This record gives sequence, structure tokens and C-alpha cells, in this order.
Amino acid sequence: MKSVILAGGSGSRLWPLSRDMYPKQLLAIDEDNSLLQQTFSRLNNFSAASDIVTITNVKHYSDIKLQLNKLSKENVVIAEPLGKNTAPAIACTLEYFRRNSNEDDIVLIVPSDHLINDVDGFNKTVKTAEILAQKGYIVTFGIKPVYPETGYGYIKTSNALETGYEVERFVEKPDFETATRYLSEGNYYWNGGIFMGKISVFLEEFGKYAPDIYKNLDQLDFSQSTKIQYGVYEQMPSISVDYAIMEKSDKIALVELQSDWNDLGSWQSLYNVKQKDVCGNVITGKVVTENVKNSFIYSQKELVAVADLEDVVIVETEDAIMACKMDKTQDVKKLYEKLKTQQSDTTKLHKTVFRPWGYYTCMNSGEGYLTKTICVLPKQKLSIQSHNHRSEHWVVLEGKALVVKDDEKFYLNAGDSIDIPIKAKHSLQNPYDEELKIIEVQKGDYISEDDIIRYEDCYGRV
Amino acid sequence: MKSVILAGGSGSRLWPLSRDMYPKQLLAIDEDNSLLQQTFSRLNNFSAASDIVTITNVKHYSDIKLQLNKLSKENVVIAEPLGKNTAPAIACTLEYFRRNSNEDDIVLIVPSDHLINDVDGFNKTVKTAEILAQKGYIVTFGIKPVYPETGYGYIKTSNALETGYEVERFVEKPDFETATRYLSEGNYYWNGGIFMGKISVFLEEFGKYAPDIYKNLDQLDFSQSTKIQYGVYEQMPSISVDYAIMEKSDKIALVELQSDWNDLGSWQSLYNVKQKDVCGNVITGKVVTENVKNSFIYSQKELVAVADLEDVVIVETEDAIMACKMDKTQDVKKLYEKLKTQQSDTTKLHKTVFRPWGYYTCMNSGEGYLTKTICVLPKQKLSIQSHNHRSEHWVVLEGKALVVKDDEKFYLNAGDSIDIPIKAKHSLQNPYDEELKIIEVQKGDYISEDDIIRYEDCYGRV
Repeated sequence: MKSVILAGGSGSRLWPLSRDMYPKQLLAIDEDNSLLQQTFSRLNNFSAASDIVTITNVKHYSDIKLQLNKLSKENVVIAEPLGKNTAPAIACTLEYFRRNSNEDDIVLIVPSDHLINDVDGFNKTVKTAEILAQKGYIVTFGIKPVYPETGYGYIKTSNALETGYEVERFVEKPDFETATRYLSEGNYYWNGGIFMGKISVFLEEFGKYAPDIYKNLDQLDFSQSTKIQYGVYEQMPSISVDYAIMEKSDKIALVELQSDWNDLGSWQSLYNVKQKDVCGNVITGKVVTENVKNSFIYSQKELVAVADLEDVVIVETEDAIMACKMDKTQDVKKLYEKLKTQQSDTTKLHKTVFRPWGYYTCMNSGEGYLTKTICVLPKQKLSIQSHNHRSEHWVVLEGKALVVKDDEKFYLNAGDSIDIPIKAKHSLQNPYDEELKIIEVQKGDYISEDDIIRYEDCYGRV
Repeated sequence: MKSVILAGGSGSRLWPLSRDMYPKQLLAIDEDNSLLQQTFSRLNNFSAASDIVTITNVKHYSDIKLQLNKLSKENVVIAEPLGKNTAPAIACTLEYFRRNSNEDDIVLIVPSDHLINDVDGFNKTVKTAEILAQKGYIVTFGIKPVYPETGYGYIKTSNALETGYEVERFVEKPDFETATRYLSEGNYYWNGGIFMGKISVFLEEFGKYAPDIYKNLDQLDFSQSTKIQYGVYEQMPSISVDYAIMEKSDKIALVELQSDWNDLGSWQSLYNVKQKDVCGNVITGKVVTENVKNSFIYSQKELVAVADLEDVVIVETEDAIMACKMDKTQDVKKLYEKLKTQQSDTTKLHKTVFRPWGYYTCMNSGEGYLTKTICVLPKQKLSIQSHNHRSEHWVVLEGKALVVKDDEKFYLNAGDSIDIPIKAKHSLQNPYDEELKIIEVQKGDYISEDDIIRYEDCYGRV
């Protein structure tokens, strides 16, 4: 079986933990593995790593690649040059599969950022869906509603099929009253955005119902790279697969998802899946409380002290603190949008940025300078690079460094320092078994991440 | 007139803005001047600077001195070697005045950390109190209660005097019912801890009612320094002036304070004196809100984003975030006590520490190193010093530095760096007109503020 992971999500819902440049699917919610990695592993039970295609915006390409490479180097990541909703993304991955496998192969399409703990139940559902997919259906995985949620779309089923139901129609997010009725009627399911079908069947429906997308597919060129050409993608309409295909096709079936499911679409839904203490609190990190109940207090770095509050979410990150009422966590999106209009960096980036070789944290900045703490993981190295507008000064805090500067090598221990003049070709390397930590002081008339010329890079970034 | 400022307060009530090492009186609540500085200026209207004696714990001596020196170099600060409540502190300042002035001089004793905006009203009250003090009364400044506060002591008045009342008795913090009765009876006042009387009268009452304190006074030696000798102070009982004198003396009168008054004893009382926006919020710093009402949101450094909360206080500082219900802000003390038992640094120090020459902020620390950002104000310099256990490495970020290292001078510009080896005699100086900012990397087997040998210091700290 082939699999597609849709990894286009934005960072607004779980802000400030998620950011535009580090959305929800990249976060490790409970365990060491991110939601993306958990999704990949789940699919890897029935698809070979090379048969799992992840599609994402080009701005997340590196981080996605970095995470998936830890699981298997065989993964395929297709990069969208701009955001175009799910229909074009799915169509392009189907086109990729059409060229690289059998048209009658079955493909399973899943979001990258949903939480599913019961893997057996999920696998069971995949088996039942496969039976219908083999018969030519496009099968959606419906989630049995447990309360009248107004934030999801619903799917109304009709006649029973061998292992599922025919779908009568897709319905938009209902109001509370309507959602309550759906719940009581029993034949409505939440639309979790999981689909399965033959490549040929999917593409046929695209041809029929979304010709504006379909007609551009043969212009795609994956021969050199898995990055979709801007000129091709730009011509496709921005539309969801539900609108484009699912609501129109008469080949849709539904199987009931046999596992737990949570879209982690808000801080409240994240709270819901976590283990609570006796006061009903979920506490993470350096936190002290006094008479706090049914709350989610998350500290990433600094101490958070809370007294006499109930039903609140408080999240501390290095550069932003968010506090809101538990049952209004959808308003986090409003805060995010406000900040975005203020061009606040806190919607875009974390203070700590991950790279293939480790990570860095910006410390101070001012007129003509910027300081960072840089951590280089064991056996990793930064590219050989130079800067046209800034000099750098490095001081080793922990571990040992090998510094290459204009073809000379320097071996630095903790406490040692070195100057990298403007335009010098240099590389910071850690060939040792311990982490290397340094302070970097950048100095110049123009200080920006884009002032970098890469000559050689073991992560393919030249 | 002589004046005494009692500046012994701890940092628990307005934590995390106040700290053990930086209590409320040192904070600038609204304006550029701290509560201590405001208090000093208020007294300076009728006492010469050299007639205003501030008494504080020795651990706050430097910060107090630093702040008062900005107003007048003539100020006198007496340092207590340990905390002993108000009675011993007042007795020692009275003894200081007895030796340095006329016994019949009048002295006004005030706390250092109360907010009074109406200086004219305060001055008027001082004048009316003076009339009674001249007649041999110890005059307390009573605050007319405006609601049944249970957190203050009350003073019950009886017969009217020329400009005030006789005092029938001092009463302890009442319960709510009792406080309500006091309020309706009309002859009860809040005890604000402001007193006036002749030096001789005060000391007479100490002799009569607090002989354990009084008998030690003649052992005090102010000839070399204004730091009280440990051996003398240690023998005095720890007791408030209310218990020791006021509740027992029959010479107590009361005048009604003619000005506004707020003891800023909690975040709520601070909120109460601040200007609100249309939603009833007090917002300070980088804050964004969505549907927030009647709340106090304070950001010192990082962004604070709040949605759908009412009646809350949220305070962000560099190393601690505090959130609590507005009408329960006295529970901040409970958080503070919990943290103290956990030996959390956040109760003691701020991440940014002020020094006579400027300030520093600790950035990272780890096994064998510590990094700081140091700011040296124009025309200031650090002492000539050396360290036995650590080397230092300095990188100039902003401004220019003069570095003295083993009697050699180095002139550093932004971007320049220098190594200070273990045991080297060195000094960081800023003889220029702009602020100097550097990064310091300390490296060694023992890194602590006490590894310092000072050879020469323009602030008298050798």
C-alpha cells in the first residue's frame, strides 16, 4: 500500500508552542516522537518507507526531512512552493505515485498532526477500508461523534456496505443545535480527513470534478527534485479535497475508525488527552501551584507560579507567554492573528531554531550585533560558509570544537575563543562524542540569516 | 525636623517583581523614582537630607544607598546586621539622633514602601501632628477606613484634642464582621505605621516599656560606621513598635492623614491605584489581549498574550511568571513561601542585578561556565579585582571599553575581545559618554560571586 502524509498545517492552534515555522506536526506532544513521526511510524506498518510520501510547504521541508530521516532515510518529501489547501497537494502526490507505481495500487491519505494511540484499532480500520477501496470506492474514515462538536465537518451515511456505509453527503461545520441532532440521529460521523482509494479512482474523480487541478498534473516534473515547480502549482486553485472531490463524487464510502482519535486542534483538546493529577491539572515543567484546578500549566523554560485559578491554560515559552480560559482555547487563534498583523516574530519562529546539525538560540541583539548560543550535536558540522557583512567571534562553553578557517584547522577547548573575519571561509565542527556549545557574537552592518554563502554542506543545503 | 525611613520590607508581596534582595521599596511603581526615593523626597520637604535616616537590613544597604545617592549624597543609611522588626530599628535611629542633635527635636517615622500622591495633604497632616508632638504626644497618622479591610491593624480614638484625638487602644487585624463594625462606628482608623514625637519622649517610652531594647542602646557605636554591631543588635528582642510601645504608652494621639494612602501590600492594591483602560485592565509592557477584563497584565521582557480571562493578575519577569486571581493576591505570599522552601533563586534575586556602576544579567550557566551580559554606565568603572578560580573572556557588544589588565591598558571597540586569566588584576571601565555593553564568559572550577578580591573601588566596596 502507498501512503500520503499531508503536512501543510499552520502553527496557530497550539501557539505559542507551535509557530508558523514550526507547526503542530513537528511537536513532540507526549513522547520523544513528534506527531509527524508517530504518523509515519503508524503508516510504516503497511507501507514501505519509500512508499510513504509526505507533502508540505517548502518552508517546512528541512524540518520535516530532518525528523523523518531519523526514522528512515528512504522517505519521500514533496515540497509545495506555496500553500494551496488539500486538493492540489493530494493530486500532486497521486501523480507522483502514478509515475512511480501501479495505477491500481491503493493509497491511504492521512493528516500529519492527529493523535492516535490505539495503533491496532487503526490497523484494523485500514484492513476493512481496503476491502472497499479494492472495489473502487474512495473510503473515508469516519469518527463516531461523542459530543456535539461544532468545529468539525460531518459525514452523513446511508446504506450499509460490506464493511462500512455508503455516504449520503458531506456537511459543513454545524451550529450547536444541529450538531446535537446529528449526534442523536446516529448516522453522522466526524470528518477526520483520512481517505483511501485506488490511485486510478482518485485521479479519475479529479479529472471529472477538478479539471483545473487535473489538467496541470502532467506538467509536473519530479525527475530532478521532489520540489513542485512554482509555475505549475501556481495555476491550480486553492481548494480543499472535500469541496473539490468528496462532496461531488458518487464513489464515496465510509468505514468507522476503530481507534481513539484527537486532532489536537486546541489547547483544550491537548489537555483532554493528557493524564491529570488529583486537582485535574496537567502540569509540565518548572511550575508551582496553590489552589489551582482543572488547568493546563506548561513551562518550557522559566518558572510559572499560579494561585487560585480554575479552568485556565497557561503556556510559557522562551519568548511568549499565553494565558486563556480552557473552554475558549479556540481564541488562541485570535491572539495569533492579532500578533501576526503586528508582525510579531513570536508567530513565526521560536527563539530556539533546529538545524540538521543541532540548534541555536538567539540571545541579545542590538545595533550592529547579535549573539547566539549554538549547540552542535556529536559528529555533526555546520557547512563551510562565509559572510559578506559580518564577522563572528566564537567562545567555546562546553565540549570541544574543530574550527576550519580559510583552510587552517583550529582545535578549541572550553574557554577558548576565535575570530572569524568578514569573508573568511569557515566551518564549525564537532567530530567528538560530546555536545559542543558555543557563544557566537555576530558583528556587522547587516546581520541576517540570508548573509550566507555555502561552499560545502553535508546536509545538501549548498 | 528629623525623619526616619523604615526600609526593612521583604520581597514577598509583589513577587515576582519584588525579591528578597530587591524588595518593594526599591521598585519604581509608576514613575522613574522608587517608592523609597519618593518617600525620601516627601520627607525632604521639611527635613534636610542629612536629617533623614534610613534604616535597612545590611543586605539591602548597597541598593538603598545607590538609590538615595541619586537624590542627595547627604543621606544617612543605618544597616541592621539582621532583621529584628520595627521596635529595635526605631530605637537605634532614635539613639543615633540623640547623639547627633537636640533631644527635644521632633522626629517623623515612616515606612519606605507606601504610596502617597497627595504631597500637600501629607504636609498638612505633618503640620497638625507637629502641634501635638510639641506638647509631648506620640502622634500616629490614622488612615480613615473606606472599606472593612481585614489585613490591617486598627486604632480606636476617644476624646478630641486640639488637632486630633486621644487614642483609646490599638487593635489587631479584625475579622470581616468586626472590621465592618469598626467602619460603621466611625472612630476607628487604619494603622499606617507613621509616627511622630520628640526624640526624648520616644526614648522615655522605650525605657519604660521596652527596657530589653533600651538598655542596649548605649552600646551602639556610630563613630566608625553606620552599620549596627551584630553583638549589640542580636541581644534585642524581635518585636514591632506597636507591641513594644504604642499599645502600652498613655501618650499616644492620632491625627487623620489628609492625603491618599496605599501600602501596596498586594498586586490588587497596586492595581487599585493604577489608571485602567476601558475594559478595566492595567496593561504594562509587551501585552496583547482578547476579551480580557478587570485584570492586571504586566510584562517586563517577553510577550504576554491573554484571552477570555477576567479578574486576574499576570506578571512576567525575566525568570518567573506569576498568575493569580485578583481578589486572592495575598496568596502570592504562599507561592513565595513554597518557592523559598524549594530554595528557588526566583525568591531571592532578579536575573538582572543592579550595581553602582550599572547592571548585569546572567544568561547561560553550565558545568564550569557562566555567561553574563554586563552594562557599564557612562563614566563608571568596576573595581580593580582578581579571581582565584575563574578566567574571564569579554566581548564588546556596544560602546567602547577601557580594560586594565595587570597594569596594562587596552582600548576595546565593539566586536573586540580580551582574555582575563585566573589571578590577573583587572578592571572594566567606561570613561566614555555612551553605555558599554559586553558579554562575559566566566570559566573555571568554582564560579561564584564571592570569588573576588577587590584592590580598589570607587564605590567603597574594598
